[in-house]
Amino acid sequence: MNNLPEPIHNLVSWFNKLPGIGPKTSLRFVYYLLKTPKHELEQFAQSLRELHEKITFCSLCQTHTLKDPCSICANEKRDKSALCVVSEPRDMQAIENTGEYNGLYFVLGGLIQPIEGITPDKLRFKELEQRMNQSPAPKEIIFAFNPDIDGETTTLHLSKILKKYPIKITKLARGLPVGAELEYADQVTLTDALKGRREV
Amino acid sequence: MNNLPEPIHNLVSWFNKLPGIGPKTSLRFVYYLLKTPKHELEQFAQSLRELHEKITFCSLCQTHTLKDPCSICANEKRDKSALCVVSEPRDMQAIENTGEYNGLYFVLGGLIQPIEGITPDKLRFKELEQRMNQSPAPKEIIFAFNPDIDGETTTLHLSKILKKYPIKITKLARGLPVGAELEYADQVTLTDALKGRREV
Repeated sequence: MNNLPEPIHNLVSWFNKLPGIGPKTSLRFVYYLLKTPKHELEQFAQSLRELHEKITFCSLCQTHTLKDPCSICANEKRDKSALCVVSEPRDMQAIENTGEYNGLYFVLGGLIQPIEGITPDKLRFKELEQRMNQSPAPKEIIFAFNPDIDGETTTLHLSKILKKYPIKITKLARGLPVGAELEYADQVTLTDALKGRREV
Repeated sequence: MNNLPEPIHNLVSWFNKLPGIGPKTSLRFVYYLLKTPKHELEQFAQSLRELHEKITFCSLCQTHTLKDPCSICANEKRDKSALCVVSEPRDMQAIENTGEYNGLYFVLGGLIQPIEGITPDKLRFKELEQRMNQSPAPKEIIFAFNPDIDGETTTLHLSKILKKYPIKITKLARGLPVGAELEYADQVTLTDALKGRREV
């Protein structure tokens, strides 16, 4: 990668910073872009620039939005009694894509990871407490975190904090995902599936 | 992906055009960039813009370069008697990375693919003939194409055209790649490895 002309080298190092992208894939992107018309590349650059210029945060749910409050929090038809707490806006997007949830959201901005230095004070715990006292106050809190140690730690910590409110606290069901083979399922998942078994 | 704010949606569709990148990965890139400082994003956009502004083609080997002729063609220490013909600049980069080749290059701009409409007149066949008559004229032509049908077709076609020149024409060796298991090698590769066997 040493003999590359500077503009190619620069762009490769930018793509290289994206999650999951190494130098070979970055170079492949740049060679693709070299065959793209100039005006399209200009628009791509403009889109990059507009990202920070136009995007702001919703004061209610803390997600990325063009207008505050965001389209979900401002939607009169949404169920104001349910509040789904997620780690990142992308998790919110994943739940929205199911089309099965009609309540509101709150984005924590991460999960507790003491080893990485992400302690509760670095997440939006205070903002969540403020949100609990804001109108419309939620009647149910749904924790929708990744089913791993960080997710469980955050669930435990938050449920202690929120215990003082007269609300229902739930978390996403755990069990076998669609298409899984029982034979190859790990013990924890199978235990979860057994514990959470439902009447047919 | 429907409820995304417009600037996020726009950028997702740009990343989505990159080779091998789908909508989910694009969204992951955009969420990553939302956490990147504004001035860095500005530089990324600038790098994109500079790609077409600064990059030109080398009149000798047809690769991307800042200056014409490129650093390889202009290098006095390179062996002017060998000319390696590749499909794309990225293949040239792969050969350069080995550090084993000291000759010059010529970038065809693709391989013959009649079904895709890529016929010899859409590739740099004429420019290659012009190159043959330019000084320093090569004494050996090395075809370094992918070992597939397109590569073989192009090799056959080019070797017919270049037959009239008093030069040696070679192509990259075919055989077992490092780390391969003989047991699982395909018949064509094993036949190639047998035919091209070398004295120990």
